[in-house]
Formats: sequence, structure tokens, C-alpha cells
Amino acid sequence: MSKNSPAIILSCPQMGENIGASARGMLNFELQDLRLVAPRDGWPNQAAIDNGAGAFDVMSETPVFDALPEALSDCHYVYATTARTRDMVKPVMDVHAAMKDARERHAQGQKIGFVFGPERTGLENNDLSHCHALIHVPTAPDFSSLNLGQCVLLIAYAWHSSAIKESKIEIKTGDADPVTHEKMEELFLRLEGELDKARFFRDDNLKPAILRNIRNMLLRAEITDQEARTFHGIISALIGNKTQD
Amino acid sequence: MSKNSPAIILSCPQMGENIGASARGMLNFELQDLRLVAPRDGWPNQAAIDNGAGAFDVMSETPVFDALPEALSDCHYVYATTARTRDMVKPVMDVHAAMKDARERHAQGQKIGFVFGPERTGLENNDLSHCHALIHVPTAPDFSSLNLGQCVLLIAYAWHSSAIKESKIEIKTGDADPVTHEKMEELFLRLEGELDKARFFRDDNLKPAILRNIRNMLLRAEITDQEARTFHGIISALIGNKTQD
Repeated sequence: MSKNSPAIILSCPQMGENIGASARGMLNFELQDLRLVAPRDGWPNQAAIDNGAGAFDVMSETPVFDALPEALSDCHYVYATTARTRDMVKPVMDVHAAMKDARERHAQGQKIGFVFGPERTGLENNDLSHCHALIHVPTAPDFSSLNLGQCVLLIAYAWHSSAIKESKIEIKTGDADPVTHEKMEELFLRLEGELDKARFFRDDNLKPAILRNIRNMLLRAEITDQEARTFHGIISALIGNKTQD
Repeated sequence: MSKNSPAIILSCPQMGENIGASARGMLNFELQDLRLVAPRDGWPNQAAIDNGAGAFDVMSETPVFDALPEALSDCHYVYATTARTRDMVKPVMDVHAAMKDARERHAQGQKIGFVFGPERTGLENNDLSHCHALIHVPTAPDFSSLNLGQCVLLIAYAWHSSAIKESKIEIKTGDADPVTHEKMEELFLRLEGELDKARFFRDDNLKPAILRNIRNMLLRAEITDQEARTFHGIISALIGNKTQD
């Protein structure tokens, strides 16, 4: 975990449980610079430790500050998370835009801070005046109650996943070898032969199209060498010729 | 909330608390098709209701199934979430890729399912064989313990945010009018005049560059009409001429 990775600053958090959940969510996504401003129930806090699932054993010590500006002293750019939009002249970003912006600043060596307000009220306008930009997490209008720990988790996840330049899909084959075209061809030809014998193709005119469909279907499945052998076994079983299995 | 929006299927969930957190996280992000397969502690479950923060009052009834295939019967494409990669021939997607894929299928009218395994063990290979693809949520290798409710929250968030085509940054000005160029020019010229009087520009050669810097700085701040007036007041105060404020 980079020393320069973003700080998560909880301003006046009320419930220890949420501090614990925040720490846990941060570590899940490789953040560990947690800072507390005037936590209601003091610090250290047993409820936080209990709900942290070991997070505080892994994290370096969590500093506690009396006021928000002190907690931000080494930060170059600070984003405040808010549920409501405010009557305030300030850039408002959605999460994706904020992370793109933060990644660019981080790459330039800037220390980033993400500030979260207390559970009940959120950040006060005075706190917001210490922050450069607002992050708005859009939630369902009729059920928008993200709790503090969940909100920190989402921001930590969004930060972590913003490092992934391109999304990817890969087919896991484990130890299995993909099948060669030659063996697929053997399989197709055998299947075609057996279907012929079984009078599967009632209309000779349709036969080429049906064969193409079957071929497309099996290629799309990107089957493995082992699976091709299994398929031979299936054909053998269905035609009642166990000796070819 | 669309009737065709994705289903969240919890296979053999153990703790009611996590079912409640899942429901809550779903509703935060406009999903409400929750399905349970053989919940350990039965259904309905008081711990789920308590931890759902009212989610079950908003959601339609949560159906319970004996086995996974029944819960998936109306789905066209099903993603399983796994913490570990498996020795199994199956597309493995990161969250972003999975949501892109799912959005395309959803736009074609397909019913999507996201399947989550029990807390302790995750999904069994037999369960996975009913799913088309795996979603891998990358977490810190040394602190990877995402709980079930958190995992559902992240997937719901990722689904919801995948609908946002372009990320955006906007400057919220509230009711404030942006300042006109004319008034900015008045402000600059007044500032320049006062700085001249105060012998701020010690080197006439540097004066144009310094003025450009000040101009750039103030334009970058995109100040409002009210803020321009405030700035005039600041100048007045600093020069000791309160009558101009």
C-alpha cells in the first residue's frame, strides 16, 4: 500500500461500528490512511475494533484531530462526500469523474483526501468550505440511506477500481487445454455422420444450414480438449455404441 | 424501478443481518428483485428486517426457493460472484466488464441474475455450473474479507453506475449568477490601480507577467457576481477605504 495513497477522513463520526466498517472497507481496497476528527465516543473505541474484523491490527495508528482543517493539513486536494447538493459554488462530481480527477492528481504526486460527515447530519457547510470539490453518490431518490461505512466502502472500491485501465473478460480454462481445430473437425464429422445415419436431416436442402448452426454453436462454446472427448462419449452413449467411448 | 431489472440471488445465506444489508444496498441503487435459496435461519427473519432499515417494507415479497436452479428459472444470463478463481471453464469478468456485458444484455430484454454464495464458503462448483460467467471483485490480497452485504452493495452500485454513460463534473453555483467579463475587468483594473498606488510592482518589467498571473488565478476560480463584490470589499478594507465597500 502506497504511503501516498488517499486519506479517508471521518469528520465527527458517531458510531464506532461505522468507524470499524470504514477501516475494513478501506483495507479491502488497499487504503489505510484513516483519520478521525472528534469522534463522538472517543478513541480508541471497542465497537470500532469489534466491527473492524482485524482492520486496526493491520492499519497503522489512526490519528485523531480536534478539527477538520488539522486533519487535512498535508492534503493537496480534498473531496467531500455529500448526499445532498448544496447551495455553494463548488465543483460537484459524480463518483466516476471524481476518481478520474483524483487519479490524475495522485499521479502528479498530490495527496488526496476524501471527507465524510457524521451519520445523522452529513458535513456542515463550514466543513465543506475546506474541501475543493463535492462527490455526489447518486442513490435511489426514495431509498437513499447509505450508511457511513457503506459510503466509505463504495469510495474505496471506486478508487481501487479506477486504477484498472481496461476492463477485461477472460475465459478461465484452468489446467484444461483448448481443443485443436482438427479435433473439433473430427467431432463435427462424426456427429454429422451419426445424424445422417439417424435420418436427422429430413430435408437435404436444409442440411448445410443446420450443420453450420451446430458448428457455430459448438465453436461459440470454446470447448476444451477434455470436453471434446466427453462429447464423443455423449454421441457414443446416445447411439448405444459404448465401445467407441 | 424496472420490473426487468436484475435479480439478486442469495444462495444459502447464513446471517439474517446480511440479508437485510443486501436488501438495503439493493434499494439504495434501485434494485428490488431479491431471491433467497434455502436461507439457514428460515424466512421471514427478524435480524434481516432489523438490519434492512425499512427495505422490506418497500420491496415486493422476497421469494424463497429450495435450490438454485429454481431461483434462476426466468433468467437469461447469470453471473456468479466469487472471491477465488476456480478451476472451471467459464468466462471470468472484472466488475466493470461484467456490468458492461450485463447492460448490453439488459438492453436486449434479457433478465439478468447476480448470484452470491453463503458467507463462510462462497458458491460451490455445482452452483457455479448453473451460472454463465463469474464476476471477480479484486480486493487487497492481505485483507480480502468482503462480507455478503457489502458485496451485494458493490454489485448494486456498479450496476447502477454503469447506466451513467459519461461521467461529469459541474460547478454548482446555486442561485448565484456568474460574473460578467465586464465586472471582472473592473475588478482587475481596480486591483491593478490599488497595487500600483501601494508600490506593489517593484519591477516594471515584471508587472505584465504578474498581472497576467493574477488574472489567470481569478478567472480559474470562476467567481460569481456576489464574490466579485466581496472581492471589491476586501480591496476596500485592505486599503482602509470603508466607504467603497
